[in-house]
Amino acid sequence: MALAFNLLQRGLFSKTGQCAASLLRLQSTQPAPAPQPVELLVPGEPDGPMMLTAHPGPQSDLLKAQLDEIQNTAALQFFCDYRKSIGNYLVDVDGNTMLDVFQQISSMPLGYNHPEIVDIFNDPETIACFANRPALGPLPPHNWVDLLKNTLLSVAPPGMTEVQTMLCGSTANENAFKACFIAYQTKKRGGAPPSQEELESVMYGKAPGAAQLSVLSFAGGFHGRTMGTLSASRSKAIHKADVPHFDWPMASFPKYKYPLDENVAYNQSQDINSLTQAEELMHHWATEKNMPVAIVILEPVQAEGGDNHCSNEFAKGLQQLSKKHGAAFFVDEVQTGGGPTGKMWAHEHWGLPYPPDVVSFSKKMLIGGYYYNKDLRPVEAYRIMNTWLGEPSKLLMLDKVIKVTKEKQLFEVVKASGSVLVQGMQDVSDKYPEKISNLRGKGTFLAYDCPNTRTRDSLVHWLRNNGIQTGGCGDHSVRMRPALIFQPHHAEIFLEAFEEGVKNLKVVG
Amino acid sequence: MALAFNLLQRGLFSKTGQCAASLLRLQSTQPAPAPQPVELLVPGEPDGPMMLTAHPGPQSDLLKAQLDEIQNTAALQFFCDYRKSIGNYLVDVDGNTMLDVFQQISSMPLGYNHPEIVDIFNDPETIACFANRPALGPLPPHNWVDLLKNTLLSVAPPGMTEVQTMLCGSTANENAFKACFIAYQTKKRGGAPPSQEELESVMYGKAPGAAQLSVLSFAGGFHGRTMGTLSASRSKAIHKADVPHFDWPMASFPKYKYPLDENVAYNQSQDINSLTQAEELMHHWATEKNMPVAIVILEPVQAEGGDNHCSNEFAKGLQQLSKKHGAAFFVDEVQTGGGPTGKMWAHEHWGLPYPPDVVSFSKKMLIGGYYYNKDLRPVEAYRIMNTWLGEPSKLLMLDKVIKVTKEKQLFEVVKASGSVLVQGMQDVSDKYPEKISNLRGKGTFLAYDCPNTRTRDSLVHWLRNNGIQTGGCGDHSVRMRPALIFQPHHAEIFLEAFEEGVKNLKVVG
Repeated sequence: MALAFNLLQRGLFSKTGQCAASLLRLQSTQPAPAPQPVELLVPGEPDGPMMLTAHPGPQSDLLKAQLDEIQNTAALQFFCDYRKSIGNYLVDVDGNTMLDVFQQISSMPLGYNHPEIVDIFNDPETIACFANRPALGPLPPHNWVDLLKNTLLSVAPPGMTEVQTMLCGSTANENAFKACFIAYQTKKRGGAPPSQEELESVMYGKAPGAAQLSVLSFAGGFHGRTMGTLSASRSKAIHKADVPHFDWPMASFPKYKYPLDENVAYNQSQDINSLTQAEELMHHWATEKNMPVAIVILEPVQAEGGDNHCSNEFAKGLQQLSKKHGAAFFVDEVQTGGGPTGKMWAHEHWGLPYPPDVVSFSKKMLIGGYYYNKDLRPVEAYRIMNTWLGEPSKLLMLDKVIKVTKEKQLFEVVKASGSVLVQGMQDVSDKYPEKISNLRGKGTFLAYDCPNTRTRDSLVHWLRNNGIQTGGCGDHSVRMRPALIFQPHHAEIFLEAFEEGVKNLKVVG
Repeated sequence: MALAFNLLQRGLFSKTGQCAASLLRLQSTQPAPAPQPVELLVPGEPDGPMMLTAHPGPQSDLLKAQLDEIQNTAALQFFCDYRKSIGNYLVDVDGNTMLDVFQQISSMPLGYNHPEIVDIFNDPETIACFANRPALGPLPPHNWVDLLKNTLLSVAPPGMTEVQTMLCGSTANENAFKACFIAYQTKKRGGAPPSQEELESVMYGKAPGAAQLSVLSFAGGFHGRTMGTLSASRSKAIHKADVPHFDWPMASFPKYKYPLDENVAYNQSQDINSLTQAEELMHHWATEKNMPVAIVILEPVQAEGGDNHCSNEFAKGLQQLSKKHGAAFFVDEVQTGGGPTGKMWAHEHWGLPYPPDVVSFSKKMLIGGYYYNKDLRPVEAYRIMNTWLGEPSKLLMLDKVIKVTKEKQLFEVVKASGSVLVQGMQDVSDKYPEKISNLRGKGTFLAYDCPNTRTRDSLVHWLRNNGIQTGGCGDHSVRMRPALIFQPHHAEIFLEAFEEGVKNLKVVG
């Protein structure tokens, strides 16, 4: 029977949100602090998970069979009741209530049904915004400039002042690629628009109009699933197989040993090897293949690829290399952006000497898009375009997210909850080093490794059946992606289940 | 001073929606019918356009200057006040009221602020749907199966039972391309999943995992702006220049002379030439270039490319060719789908012997996506995926669109209004054949040609300044894309301005 369910049945979760269950754990290792009531950032949250059925439950199974008549359901986990979900708690159609530390693949900044978000629908102006989706390029709404200024620009990465909205992470990256390619070719022409020969040849998909340019990405990186971004994605073969690709270079990503402070020399050599390889590839693609690298793209943390981190020195070195070779330095913050590392943008941790040329976003920002260096703004109309180009209503919601983030100092909450998680998870890892290793991350953007894929999947499955919704990444890692309203007491609830899950976990071959 | 403004000032638009101004025109050529009150499909619409300023007005200019600090505004027309817009009438930030026959690039099926759409926001369940955007692949909402059945599947093209939702037209086509490529390779392997060699090579973007396959598209076609769909788009060079492309084949599209019944032999030879060329290209790409055509894609009407039509015989011949060569027959209904031709799907006019393999949609369907032949369903998880995969709230809105379309028999309205437009526009074309020619289309999905780009742009500009929001396409065409709630009396208002605009139009060099 599920642990969290057991605990609830035994009344070990208090009604204030203060977690008695976690105290049990703390009591075993350290003196219990005096219990004190916790301010719930989302009023109405339950005291803890509550599992009523094995997972997925019968209602989910029934709906899955129906959906399978209509489309592939191989990735389906379960059906949710978003009407009943609240804050950090996701409720499924079988009435199971889970503490959600994955939050729709990291895309719900304030969790479910946050009152400030729900409240916007009481305003007729909001409804006009939701009911009339414009073609944003030619016909933006009256408040578009204000919306951009109050939301995306108010939290822009340091030094960046231009932004283009899009539909999702893939279209954000894909269009930012195009903007970089266009700028590269325009610069090569000394600022002139495409020549007649270029305009004619590109209609046949041929050079010189079809630019012979490439994107350098890193092993393990993930940048999207459209055919441009997919060509730069290097995380999982099944995403890519059978699809035509652009022949672009891939460099190795530094692979660190943890803990970092015990492996300094080894990790430095990883940085140097990757940077050296990146430069060799840039040289080779420019001189041998005649397809210069116009873009160097990386994630601050390779999320889909297994939560692989790189050092500040590596990022700085790569930016320097990009500048040297005339490539745009493109930071993909689709998964890291919006605060989960404790800063608005994860690349702020790097301390770069200059802003990146592109910072793309989606997920927690609720809308896809990218910030860009002014040199990347196209001159002509219709070069970066799409009917919808995103949706203004997403910025109405983002406005509330930013407001709540400031008012409730959510980045501080992220840091505090992250500290609790790190300490607790490290304790578990120390206790079961053969099962849990390489704990890493910043804020609540954390991950750890299991010995292999099957063992990892088994742990994720156990956690889900015991009231914790989490998600795998890479081959054998698990990633934490809670909302910004994930508080220390939620971390304690997680840790209780986590320790029990790891204790029960059998390493399988 | 603006014509429509003049007419309004003179009280020539009645308060019932019955258009006195149009009677003026009718009186000059035929006996006036007895005026009768018209049931307005969207209550609260004004009686006609009302222009207060030259266009764009000072408020739009001010906002444009501000937006230009943030992003490229070269495609911007003006800023809109969607709170005040209603039905067929678009209101801008300067208080100008325009009859909108373009409707956000054909993407508003019921016009602005339709009461049935606005009404959905009174339901708390709706708000939970808008406030909690799920990761649809793993975690769909409780009502997802019902939503799909009641909306997209209830209006599916004949013979099609599977559907995949996406974000927009580009991602719909891009992902459908991927599904076709995957199915092609899977079939080649006799149903087996990708081999180890394929999985390994694709991580480097190399064959055999990176499939050596191509897409055959037609000159003038437009299928999107992501790098896969852009490679198949052949409408305008500026969309494509400076971006890397896949080297895929392009066939000529039949170019008909109008009227069709006077040019039968010529037009048949156009069909034969294009089909012959398509087959030659398929043969060449398979045997000489070793990149077989896996997809043959076309639009029922090449919209962005200039509203170019093809005959039923051409479409049937192309489907036959695709079958013969083992390519998926892909009908891109992003702009034609949803009823503007008087049928739900424009390809229904063709009378194909078999359903297409793919029918993609977006715009008037409010969500991107594609219907597909069961053979195109991927077996493995995560091959067609995206965090959001569209948005359930769009189907809540689409549900209302379908309900209103049925209750008010909007396809009949489309046909009736289309007849009025065709008759009136043909009259104008007959009167000014040197200015307006090649009137073509079905339902209200109509277009006409001007002698050249500058003259076309001048007409579009005059119309906008006189209360009619319309849009160009191709080099020298203008397309009509009104909402489904565009009624015959709106057509009369349009025709009044159109005739005046054409009369005043100067053909420029």
